[in-house]
Amino acid sequence: MTAGDPGYVDLGFARLDTHRVARTGDPEVVFAEGKTAEQTVRLLAELRTAHPERAALATRLPPGTVDAVLAAFPDALVDPVARCAAVGPLPEAVGTVCVVAAGTSDAPVAAEAAFTARAFGAGARRVDDVGVAGLHRLLAVRGELDSADCLIVVAGMEGALPSVVGGLTGVPIVAVPTSVGYGSSFDGLAALLAMLNSCAPGVVVCNIDNGFGAGVFAARVARQTARGSR
Amino acid sequence: MTAGDPGYVDLGFARLDTHRVARTGDPEVVFAEGKTAEQTVRLLAELRTAHPERAALATRLPPGTVDAVLAAFPDALVDPVARCAAVGPLPEAVGTVCVVAAGTSDAPVAAEAAFTARAFGAGARRVDDVGVAGLHRLLAVRGELDSADCLIVVAGMEGALPSVVGGLTGVPIVAVPTSVGYGSSFDGLAALLAMLNSCAPGVVVCNIDNGFGAGVFAARVARQTARGSR
Amino acid sequence: MTAGDPGYVDLGFARLDTHRVARTGDPEVVFAEGKTAEQTVRLLAELRTAHPERAALATRLPPGTVDAVLAAFPDALVDPVARCAAVGPLPEAVGTVCVVAAGTSDAPVAAEAAFTARAFGAGARRVDDVGVAGLHRLLAVRGELDSADCLIVVAGMEGALPSVVGGLTGVPIVAVPTSVGYGSSFDGLAALLAMLNSCAPGVVVCNIDNGFGAGVFAARVARQTARGSR
Amino acid sequence: MTAGDPGYVDLGFARLDTHRVARTGDPEVVFAEGKTAEQTVRLLAELRTAHPERAALATRLPPGTVDAVLAAFPDALVDPVARCAAVGPLPEAVGTVCVVAAGTSDAPVAAEAAFTARAFGAGARRVDDVGVAGLHRLLAVRGELDSADCLIVVAGMEGALPSVVGGLTGVPIVAVPTSVGYGSSFDGLAALLAMLNSCAPGVVVCNIDNGFGAGVFAARVARQTARGSR
Amino acid sequence: MTAGDPGYVDLGFARLDTHRVARTGDPEVVFAEGKTAEQTVRLLAELRTAHPERAALATRLPPGTVDAVLAAFPDALVDPVARCAAVGPLPEAVGTVCVVAAGTSDAPVAAEAAFTARAFGAGARRVDDVGVAGLHRLLAVRGELDSADCLIVVAGMEGALPSVVGGLTGVPIVAVPTSVGYGSSFDGLAALLAMLNSCAPGVVVCNIDNGFGAGVFAARVARQTARGSR
Amino acid sequence: MTAGDPGYVDLGFARLDTHRVARTGDPEVVFAEGKTAEQTVRLLAELRTAHPERAALATRLPPGTVDAVLAAFPDALVDPVARCAAVGPLPEAVGTVCVVAAGTSDAPVAAEAAFTARAFGAGARRVDDVGVAGLHRLLAVRGELDSADCLIVVAGMEGALPSVVGGLTGVPIVAVPTSVGYGSSFDGLAALLAMLNSCAPGVVVCNIDNGFGAGVFAARVARQTARGSR
Amino acid sequence: MTAGDPGYVDLGFARLDTHRVARTGDPEVVFAEGKTAEQTVRLLAELRTAHPERAALATRLPPGTVDAVLAAFPDALVDPVARCAAVGPLPEAVGTVCVVAAGTSDAPVAAEAAFTARAFGAGARRVDDVGVAGLHRLLAVRGELDSADCLIVVAGMEGALPSVVGGLTGVPIVAVPTSVGYGSSFDGLAALLAMLNSCAPGVVVCNIDNGFGAGVFAARVARQTARGSR
Amino acid sequence: MTAGDPGYVDLGFARLDTHRVARTGDPEVVFAEGKTAEQTVRLLAELRTAHPERAALATRLPPGTVDAVLAAFPDALVDPVARCAAVGPLPEAVGTVCVVAAGTSDAPVAAEAAFTARAFGAGARRVDDVGVAGLHRLLAVRGELDSADCLIVVAGMEGALPSVVGGLTGVPIVAVPTSVGYGSSFDGLAALLAMLNSCAPGVVVCNIDNGFGAGVFAARVARQTARGSR
Repeated sequence: MTAGDPGYVDLGFARLDTHRVARTGDPEVVFAEGKTAEQTVRLLAELRTAHPERAALATRLPPGTVDAVLAAFPDALVDPVARCAAVGPLPEAVGTVCVVAAGTSDAPVAAEAAFTARAFGAGARRVDDVGVAGLHRLLAVRGELDSADCLIVVAGMEGALPSVVGGLTGVPIVAVPTSVGYGSSFDGLAALLAMLNSCAPGVVVCNIDNGFGAGVFAARVARQTARGSR
Repeated sequence: MTAGDPGYVDLGFARLDTHRVARTGDPEVVFAEGKTAEQTVRLLAELRTAHPERAALATRLPPGTVDAVLAAFPDALVDPVARCAAVGPLPEAVGTVCVVAAGTSDAPVAAEAAFTARAFGAGARRVDDVGVAGLHRLLAVRGELDSADCLIVVAGMEGALPSVVGGLTGVPIVAVPTSVGYGSSFDGLAALLAMLNSCAPGVVVCNIDNGFGAGVFAARVARQTARGSR
Repeated sequence: MTAGDPGYVDLGFARLDTHRVARTGDPEVVFAEGKTAEQTVRLLAELRTAHPERAALATRLPPGTVDAVLAAFPDALVDPVARCAAVGPLPEAVGTVCVVAAGTSDAPVAAEAAFTARAFGAGARRVDDVGVAGLHRLLAVRGELDSADCLIVVAGMEGALPSVVGGLTGVPIVAVPTSVGYGSSFDGLAALLAMLNSCAPGVVVCNIDNGFGAGVFAARVARQTARGSR
Repeated sequence: MTAGDPGYVDLGFARLDTHRVARTGDPEVVFAEGKTAEQTVRLLAELRTAHPERAALATRLPPGTVDAVLAAFPDALVDPVARCAAVGPLPEAVGTVCVVAAGTSDAPVAAEAAFTARAFGAGARRVDDVGVAGLHRLLAVRGELDSADCLIVVAGMEGALPSVVGGLTGVPIVAVPTSVGYGSSFDGLAALLAMLNSCAPGVVVCNIDNGFGAGVFAARVARQTARGSR
Repeated sequence: MTAGDPGYVDLGFARLDTHRVARTGDPEVVFAEGKTAEQTVRLLAELRTAHPERAALATRLPPGTVDAVLAAFPDALVDPVARCAAVGPLPEAVGTVCVVAAGTSDAPVAAEAAFTARAFGAGARRVDDVGVAGLHRLLAVRGELDSADCLIVVAGMEGALPSVVGGLTGVPIVAVPTSVGYGSSFDGLAALLAMLNSCAPGVVVCNIDNGFGAGVFAARVARQTARGSR
Repeated sequence: MTAGDPGYVDLGFARLDTHRVARTGDPEVVFAEGKTAEQTVRLLAELRTAHPERAALATRLPPGTVDAVLAAFPDALVDPVARCAAVGPLPEAVGTVCVVAAGTSDAPVAAEAAFTARAFGAGARRVDDVGVAGLHRLLAVRGELDSADCLIVVAGMEGALPSVVGGLTGVPIVAVPTSVGYGSSFDGLAALLAMLNSCAPGVVVCNIDNGFGAGVFAARVARQTARGSR
Repeated sequence: MTAGDPGYVDLGFARLDTHRVARTGDPEVVFAEGKTAEQTVRLLAELRTAHPERAALATRLPPGTVDAVLAAFPDALVDPVARCAAVGPLPEAVGTVCVVAAGTSDAPVAAEAAFTARAFGAGARRVDDVGVAGLHRLLAVRGELDSADCLIVVAGMEGALPSVVGGLTGVPIVAVPTSVGYGSSFDGLAALLAMLNSCAPGVVVCNIDNGFGAGVFAARVARQTARGSR
Repeated sequence: MTAGDPGYVDLGFARLDTHRVARTGDPEVVFAEGKTAEQTVRLLAELRTAHPERAALATRLPPGTVDAVLAAFPDALVDPVARCAAVGPLPEAVGTVCVVAAGTSDAPVAAEAAFTARAFGAGARRVDDVGVAGLHRLLAVRGELDSADCLIVVAGMEGALPSVVGGLTGVPIVAVPTSVGYGSSFDGLAALLAMLNSCAPGVVVCNIDNGFGAGVFAARVARQTARGSR
């Protein structure tokens, strides 16, 4: 922030924080839910201008916004399951985040987490449908767990998977409860509480369905780990 | 219930349901918490009179009541961890209930479940401290799980153990959440919700810390199973 | 699980647990809610291949999926109220599950419970609309209660029926709260809490509207009871 | 309220509403919990002065306050289980309130309800320990239910008793949930929600453990009913 | 209930309790929400047959069901705001219920309460929009409050009206919280809790939006009061 | 209120409190949600008649009602984001309310607050998108904070902004939580609880999304402050 | 904050914010609960040093700390009901805060509010025990309400008083729910929700039992109002 | 786990998981709350035997257990505020964890976090009392934040500190809500929800008061980061 740069761009409907990358190493991101398609496109364009060296990320894209983004940025990378778009060159992948999901219905959250981790500069791979009711599926991929720099474990219903993974490996684990379930799952509350009370140490938790936040955090841990080791 | 027998004994402070054994196969039980030692002793004596062939059971004994029960019934069988007493001959053990507990702090609930199952006519054995953070402890006892007629799985904190056990065996599972934990465990609520949302089918749930209820139910299943097979 | 068989089939969107029947005696089931019709049909086909001797079960079928299932498997058994389909030969019915429902609005959950119990190898019969506000309706069917191997008791609103049934019979009772009600029923929470606090021993509880889970559990108890007695 | 009478007595720590009897037919009552013994005695004395024709009532008496009340008013009528005291002549009993309690632990709330109803001018009788797990105990007293002008039904745990009573009689029913229970009873919340969702019409509800409020309401109904019929 | 009459009519989808009027003085009522129009019409017809002397009542009528009811019973009395229908001769009005509502948005619940009270044999009148933010509106109708045999007080948001009314009159008060409000009203929870904690004695509470239950209860009190006084 | 004026206008569906301005200094306001367009127009017309000197305010206008208001009152001032309309001359602006919003999605609540404050006679200005994740945006507008007579601080998600503002200035702060967020924000509950527990003294709180209430309160404080200083 | 003054004093166990008065006009305050008596005395001494012109305030004093404060500062002003102490010269009283309390049990919170308002530079007076069950008590003091610059309204149980006061006067109202009550008051939650949903505009809310926060806010409003008018 | 080593030691009351270090890199830890002093000492001794190269850690030591630990292991390192003990040689400190606390009352949780991080092999330093009501205290230590490998941010009440820190730095942040507060903080729930909904990306959350879990997680991240960089 200098005399001529307040550290943000005032767009009338928003003050885009262009100084964030200087403080935190990563630029601001567009949360598209609740914004018009025009607002999201405008914000992405401003981010491209402010940070030409790194892809601008938008999450929680409503269906109509996806089309508007692709019309404005034909080269945008879009994942419809993750509801995410990245516009511009992805950063080099440094370190590895592994996203582990309990059930097939958790896929949107797992996809958002993986897309975000990659857009924030870490490599990302996924392991799906390894819920605790069939442990052999999880045990078959232990090598993938141990070789990651950070794990994201996504589960709905009773949210037991992070505890079991936490007993199998010492890799840092970010647990993400999902709203998958019904009745007394209370839209993800049951999984959230379970993960917060994990008997396995080394499990930390994000908001329900917050694949984005888990992706940011895990990418930072993975980048630190891998950059250090060079 | 006949002309001269209303099916209960009116003790002034209580109407003891002496007809319950005819309806359900099992006599009434004394829940001693909140009762005076004198009331508990009186009720046990009435149960002994009404059902001389089978031990009378009292649960949730306050410390002072334990002494009063032993003074009144020197032959009483008392388990101080389970806080239970049985007065009179235990029924023959038919079938087997296996009580599996996640942590050492779950012991009082596991003990109450096992004591109750035995007093209700099933054999009872226990497997303790096999929480999901160290799966090998549980896998080492798979044979004990499969050979039971009914399982009671006791856990606090995130309550993940019933889901994992439910993926390993088809024996009916009664899950009991405990109030072990702190903070967002909310006195057992986290474990309760987790168990109600188990991704493993075949898991049913009791109230928080309700080892007694689990013991009654499991004993009935075990007795049915084993009696049938004779 | 052998060298050539990892115990699951990796379909990309799911890892179907084909080993479950070996561990638990029952194959995996398709929870169709949140899945595309194509995914449900594909999973049913895989289950048919893996377990040709026993019907594949799908629950919580969205309306469009019902048509897709019938198109793919013209012989499928479909219950539109239960929202369930079974594809392939039903197992022999061993033992009897009786599903008791408090009100007419509880019918979908009761139907799901009965359909599941039958698909899991037990006989299933139903008793409907015997809520506690007219006890004579329940007392008129006491014989049906006592002759079952396991009872499933379904109720919404205040959820009082399992307690009353639990005072009338010693048959194991699985209580299922439903989301029937309004206002402070909080989508089934009132009934759930009531059932968890039943003053009648021998009552265990499933998640709100979880007829499937109750059906699996009750079928296992009924099969054990009846198989033993042969 | 006239020029010289503001309708209340200002005691510094309280403004005693001496005009209430003119508006509602009943004088103010002392809720002694959280008050010093001196304050309770002072308020009772003021009530005696303001309403010499009718007993002053104090509820929720702490143990020490009981002694202070008896020292100040040797003729006071005190019920230690109900934790209530009445000082002065009880009004004539008009009509009948019947207080029905599910379990022995509900006795303090039932006693408070009965004491209050009597102090508010209705006759009061009690029926204890007729919980729904042994329906014959309740059916044995149906005559007592039908002959009352208003019923108060007190229950903890799952709070099912008002629904069952509501199916047996058309007498107006005031349900009082109690904090009796543990775990997911959440200090009476389970019973409260159950009673609010009763499937039997004609059931209204008071706060948890609020025997006083139920007693006031029921006495008013009973007085109306009986006075009318003279 | 005699040898030939079980006390109910088994319609397949429902067991209509035809014996209720003998036990409680009032026949069963059709709760139409969640039922098909055909089911509601069928149940009304059965009620007409079983109780030709008294109008059959249906509540919570979905819009389509209103038309079906009017087609089947052209003389039906229908209140579209109350969503209620009465088929057959209304009973003589005995005693008076006064329904007091805090705001204009509470009208549907107030209408349901008044319609029900009338159908259950009491006279019913209404006082609307007298919320506590303008006390003079309420004070202007004090005469109407005092002359009723029972009051129903309906309010959403903070639910303060029953407390204020309870300080003005000794007529029994049934409070009905409504789901009117937003944010931390939590669909009527705020009003419900407020009414349960009323500082005015003599206030009892129904479920959120339960005008029907309040109407039944209040009619019974009013009938008792007025019948007695003849 | 005189002999001929009861202090309200009875419109059948509503009792418009025309006396409120005499008691509180401000006339009644139309909360249009849940009312028909006709009712809202009618109430605005009555308010214009009763209070010709001051604009009538309607809030929470449904889309269809906006058109009806404009048709009836072509000169009405309408803010579609705020969903508010003012009909008639705005009062002189006395004092200044500054509305500070954390994110772009909080705009509707901030707009409602500003519109209301202006309609209640204070000047209103806005500062948007100054959430705590980029503090420099807030620090850049400290002068605007300190020069206001009352601040309204609007935030969703974790609701941290009022605490930070409360540490920067001594101007009275009214915090408004919004329902912006997902998962464990529980529709604004997280922000509400955070604001109630602010570690900065001098922060008071309104209901979730209640920009109207904040605007009324802040305008009164600003008017008092500025009027005094003349 | 200059080169030599970081704006705080680092005491090892605390960083006392000595710069707060420059930012907000008021110095920091000692919240004594959870602190040792020594820590509280030390912080008061530091506050006296940093702000010799104005009394240092400590709230929520544990009983033992009261003695320690009086020993260290014999001239301290202590209110044992409010559990507050002020050490040093009170600021001139500018403007008037009136603290209105619903019941006698609300006295500690009302006293804390009044003590704080005075210590923050406003005049403070109290009106006690004017709950809504006896409106004449409140109407008798309307003049005191209207003549204040800011009102603090304290109530437990159903928390209805702020709504009623808000309908009587246009003076800004800060509502403080208290934990007075039992059962479904849930330690003040019922009153909190009621106040947040007040139908009277112009009511803002503090945390449960937070008389301190209300006092700070109201003093600031009163000071602004009165200073302006000089 | 070999033929002769099951991977755990069966102590009767516990199955100590001696294999955990091989799976996760860190040995098991003794949670002493709810255990007898003898059990804690015994478990520490077993851990010393199984892992002689690394200190055994016990947390949540009851006062009496501290003495027993010191008697058994005179060289134990004990922190009474953290309620932790380490017996044996601490591992080399690799990388740096910085524990940031909002208020003085958060000290026990911050101390537990720092003690655990050190015992798990990271360096640990603390920054206390830098709550958001005085931002300059936090801004003064920005260098300490940026130079850490992982941050633990501890706060009660509204839990705003992690969001503010998350806007200032890109170092991974583990937020720990504490139970500090009263009223609607609901024993830490307000802070927990706030942290889960942080608007700053890169914030993950632990259970209320769970300094231990945060310490384990942060130490792992710090070790990874620093080991890599050698």
